[in-house]
Amino acid sequence: MEGDPTLRLRVFDLNCWAIRYLSKRRQERVRLIGDTLHQEGFDLVLLQEVWSERDYSDLKAKLGGCYPFSHYFRSGVIGSGLCVFSRFPILDTLLYQYSLNGYPYMLQHGDWFCGKSVGLVLARGSRTTLPPRSCQLHAEYCREKDAYLPHRLVQAWELAQFIRHTSKAADVVLLGGDLNMHPEDVGIRLLRGWPGLRDAVAEATRFEGCEDGCTLVPNNCFTVKTELLPFPLGIRIDYILYKAISSFTVKCEELKTTTGTAPGMDIPFSDHEAVMATLHIRRQGQAAGANVGTAEPTLADVVTEARTEVGVGLRAAQRQRYSTGRMAVLALLLLLRQAAAALGALAGLAAGQPFPKLSFSLLAFLAIGILLLATGLHLFHTMEVKMLQGTEEQMRMALRALQERP
Amino acid sequence: MEGDPTLRLRVFDLNCWAIRYLSKRRQERVRLIGDTLHQEGFDLVLLQEVWSERDYSDLKAKLGGCYPFSHYFRSGVIGSGLCVFSRFPILDTLLYQYSLNGYPYMLQHGDWFCGKSVGLVLARGSRTTLPPRSCQLHAEYCREKDAYLPHRLVQAWELAQFIRHTSKAADVVLLGGDLNMHPEDVGIRLLRGWPGLRDAVAEATRFEGCEDGCTLVPNNCFTVKTELLPFPLGIRIDYILYKAISSFTVKCEELKTTTGTAPGMDIPFSDHEAVMATLHIRRQGQAAGANVGTAEPTLADVVTEARTEVGVGLRAAQRQRYSTGRMAVLALLLLLRQAAAALGALAGLAAGQPFPKLSFSLLAFLAIGILLLATGLHLFHTMEVKMLQGTEEQMRMALRALQERP
Repeated sequence: MEGDPTLRLRVFDLNCWAIRYLSKRRQERVRLIGDTLHQEGFDLVLLQEVWSERDYSDLKAKLGGCYPFSHYFRSGVIGSGLCVFSRFPILDTLLYQYSLNGYPYMLQHGDWFCGKSVGLVLARGSRTTLPPRSCQLHAEYCREKDAYLPHRLVQAWELAQFIRHTSKAADVVLLGGDLNMHPEDVGIRLLRGWPGLRDAVAEATRFEGCEDGCTLVPNNCFTVKTELLPFPLGIRIDYILYKAISSFTVKCEELKTTTGTAPGMDIPFSDHEAVMATLHIRRQGQAAGANVGTAEPTLADVVTEARTEVGVGLRAAQRQRYSTGRMAVLALLLLLRQAAAALGALAGLAAGQPFPKLSFSLLAFLAIGILLLATGLHLFHTMEVKMLQGTEEQMRMALRALQERP
Repeated sequence: MEGDPTLRLRVFDLNCWAIRYLSKRRQERVRLIGDTLHQEGFDLVLLQEVWSERDYSDLKAKLGGCYPFSHYFRSGVIGSGLCVFSRFPILDTLLYQYSLNGYPYMLQHGDWFCGKSVGLVLARGSRTTLPPRSCQLHAEYCREKDAYLPHRLVQAWELAQFIRHTSKAADVVLLGGDLNMHPEDVGIRLLRGWPGLRDAVAEATRFEGCEDGCTLVPNNCFTVKTELLPFPLGIRIDYILYKAISSFTVKCEELKTTTGTAPGMDIPFSDHEAVMATLHIRRQGQAAGANVGTAEPTLADVVTEARTEVGVGLRAAQRQRYSTGRMAVLALLLLLRQAAAALGALAGLAAGQPFPKLSFSLLAFLAIGILLLATGLHLFHTMEVKMLQGTEEQMRMALRALQERP
């Protein structure tokens, strides 16, 4: 871009599904991803679900020549799984961990342990400041009865706010990741509307890949076929979103997805398809202004819809806070009752039939266990309530700002 | 400021020590704070440790006339305790919760339950964009053997990074809060050096209040006198820091602190002294540029010092992760041994003396308890290790950037 006011930026995004001991043919696939990235020479690579630091180190060693700059984001128990490889120098990084991310006791879903986050990387492409973000939101396990929707909406809102607040001095903003939402879902509409991001699939001049840009497709041998039964073409949950901020414009020239297998191979990179965008970034004479993607009355509707869902989640969390609190109190009462009985037995030693020791201590341990568990859950749901209330309040403020704007 | 390129901004900052049931004369003090704020008519009020939402609502009701805009930040189990009252419209807010904040099992210190955070408020003062931040870092309980230093440094680093990334398009940045660090501590030097903040006490043209701007003083009837024995003048841990970013300059005209009692009263506002600054903000012809407060070789030394301390914390966390993991494994082995013994007893029912049932089940419950506790702690310390590693890595990157700069 030296002397030339345009830049062609090739971006690669993939949810790698690289969970040690659990993901099928992981090492083979990570090698394959590394080989492809090495051959293709993208400008920016945004990867998710690289849970093992060894996999990241292997990729880094292999890709050092063509992507001299990289960063791995650490968070949660297992990690965030996010990493970025870049041809441009990475000047700075910032990790924002979502305040809500599922429940620690839902071990079978495991989202809570991942510390899901958005990782911001500040890269400088000759004359452009690019903060690409790699992120992943809470997974959807059941579309009909989606218990995690409020958490995912809080995450989408925090992501939108994070983008708004950290991108003000950037030239171009880029967001890539597995958002775990369908294109028409309220969370995606929020991300398009509130920070004004554009969807590369919708804006692309040329498109090649799975129909509608789907990234979970029945053709992929690793996808769970039963989950895709209601969607014969597949679903789209991985995105590349972008916006130009200062005196720049961005156009998506081309968008490609893989189609069930890696190019020229017989196995896929992952259970998700990769998304590859070629963006055309151009400096223009005057500042473009921060144009919001959606017309504002529509945006107000989207924020209202999201706020309603967060409110539903808030009431559920309040109910759970109440019932876990009540259970803790009952367990405490049982313990006190037992302590009184034990003291009574000690005071009048020989009085009548003694209480059977085994059942007595079993009951005491049970009460202690329930007390500890219920207290822990009560604290957790108290935090959940606080965060949902905070988000609802922020959304209310955003709605007021939208309504007051001339 | 209409037509006039200058703005005088009066800022009030106070750690209110308003913990329900625990803080002495809380309601009386909150009323007093409200009355004073109402009379004095500051432009911006940054409060910490307002743990009760009822106290916030009372203040809001009382101050609605002179501070029409306010925000209460919710986080953690108890809350963040942060709130902001403003004469200027609050356009947007963002809460960043620190990734590390003490240990949940240190109940007597309680920091973990507060969800300590930095709250960003985007306010617009006629022609100036002001993102004031209210924040509180982890408390220091023992200066000689400060087990929380690495956590506080991670928080200081995250705060510095948060300011750098969210203030790029602002005119003036303002940070007020209880930073729980002395002025010469490495965390404060980091906050002055890395985002280039200036300390209102050091820069003030006129100063009035406790010597050296101390905010925990022996004169205050609520402070714990034994903690202040090594510091006969008191200590300074509450700050107002600022910087001008775009084409603005900021000067601190006047800085005042309360001196053990509220002005004209016989009791203090809190166990901390209030800090009040009058800032003179002036638009100048050309952009001031993001000048870093400290010379860069000194800044590199500060980042290196902070990184060394984080490294010490990392090794301690790794040791704790190892020992809790080992304890969990031992408890599991004990449980398996018991299960084998129980199965053996069931198989050869009449063989020899039966194992005493009571001790057997007590031991089993003990093993289950230890297993659960040790696993929980192991998960917690794994997260701690990840976050300390991530911060160390970010500091390494910052040092490289500082060294590479021409």
